[in-house]
Amino acid sequence: MCQLLGMNCNTPTDILFSFEGFHRRGGLTDHHADGWGIAFFEGKGVRLFIDDKPSADSPVSALVRQYPIKSQNVIAHIRKATQGVINLANCHPFQREIWGQYWIFAHNGDLKDFHARPGCYYNAVGSTDSEAAFCYIMEALRAKWCTPPDTATLFAEIARLTAELHGHGVFNFMLSNGDWLITHCSTKLHYIVRQAPFPAAHLVDEDVTVDFATVTTPNDRVAVIATVPLTDNEQWTAMQAGEMILFRDGAPLLQHQS
Amino acid sequence: MCQLLGMNCNTPTDILFSFEGFHRRGGLTDHHADGWGIAFFEGKGVRLFIDDKPSADSPVSALVRQYPIKSQNVIAHIRKATQGVINLANCHPFQREIWGQYWIFAHNGDLKDFHARPGCYYNAVGSTDSEAAFCYIMEALRAKWCTPPDTATLFAEIARLTAELHGHGVFNFMLSNGDWLITHCSTKLHYIVRQAPFPAAHLVDEDVTVDFATVTTPNDRVAVIATVPLTDNEQWTAMQAGEMILFRDGAPLLQHQS
Repeated sequence: MCQLLGMNCNTPTDILFSFEGFHRRGGLTDHHADGWGIAFFEGKGVRLFIDDKPSADSPVSALVRQYPIKSQNVIAHIRKATQGVINLANCHPFQREIWGQYWIFAHNGDLKDFHARPGCYYNAVGSTDSEAAFCYIMEALRAKWCTPPDTATLFAEIARLTAELHGHGVFNFMLSNGDWLITHCSTKLHYIVRQAPFPAAHLVDEDVTVDFATVTTPNDRVAVIATVPLTDNEQWTAMQAGEMILFRDGAPLLQHQS
Repeated sequence: MCQLLGMNCNTPTDILFSFEGFHRRGGLTDHHADGWGIAFFEGKGVRLFIDDKPSADSPVSALVRQYPIKSQNVIAHIRKATQGVINLANCHPFQREIWGQYWIFAHNGDLKDFHARPGCYYNAVGSTDSEAAFCYIMEALRAKWCTPPDTATLFAEIARLTAELHGHGVFNFMLSNGDWLITHCSTKLHYIVRQAPFPAAHLVDEDVTVDFATVTTPNDRVAVIATVPLTDNEQWTAMQAGEMILFRDGAPLLQHQS
């Protein structure tokens, strides 16, 4: 299975510490070597890096690890191919535009017998179940609303569509429009909210510790969401199967359990 | 004004030589320091690197110069802001999906009094006239066809839309779907087709020479298109104002003069 990493903050923050451990799962400490990707929102804009090489030895991954891009919303993905060949068009995260916003989506799981009809607004470019599911959600939202509804209404509709897709199989995902970040747990997803007083955190995948108190201000709040906890000295919250959370400004704002 | 660089080939080729001279125009040898971007198609997938820092000292540009990504279609852009502030959402190239294909667009120029109505399918995220023009073209094509027409019909319709937009001001652009690359000249655009026997070429912007005969096979054919010729010992063809060309497999295939 693939691995997901997300970050949602109330102030632009770099993800270097979390990515340091996470990227090693792509071919070094774990077996997810079929490509990877990471998207950083900066205001309404987004930087999307994707690569069909394993993240542990990707030049693009080396860039991301050395380049402290500050962002309020980040989604990263390391791929273990289940459906769709290994090529660039099948690398997550996927990007589309809706209502003049970029949306970013990454999926961990496997949807069986899911065959979306050709969309009027959105169609998959690659051959993954994941991009097809993303396009299905975007298509349904766009068909329902010409302009964006309020966040609670939107969240409820995404929850309804998610439950439908969840019926086809494993559907852990992350979705962001640069303002909020939504996570859905099907089998495995954990999160932590870091805020003052900030802890010193130690990575599971590598012997690296960072004292967040030295790199943050007292008002900073950062939510990190990952398939498997990235640190071994902090308390991560395990999401429940069927649980969906909308994070904004570094904290859970809306929750849905199906 | 901005600078454009495009490459269309009959076999995946790296753009390192051309990019070596081109990237220096972003803040070193010329004054286009308001961001830059480059898109590489790989099959149906696309790598899009954008940065709101000058290309001459951008870490992302350093990566691109060291990482020989091979592609049949590349579009690069160095920005000198005319409309829209300097931020990531306003960096070219822009990307959208249509008919299950990614399309990439970059513009050099300035469109006056161009105010597109809100699109049903496509809307700009940033505040440039360029992205608005791209969305206008995409919107019109998608409204006309639910599935892609043949290339000649598509080219003729893009030429019609281009003439309309050209009425608003300077509109040099490059557009690619990964199969073909279309260039339109409003004020300044040059191209060259390189094929066997391959020449040794010398960069204008830097004292670098490459002997293409040593890095190609006899069947390779590469079209390079740039605002200003990149080499000083080859014969570049100047496009005419109102001329639009569709390149495929490294050579002009369709031409339109308005």
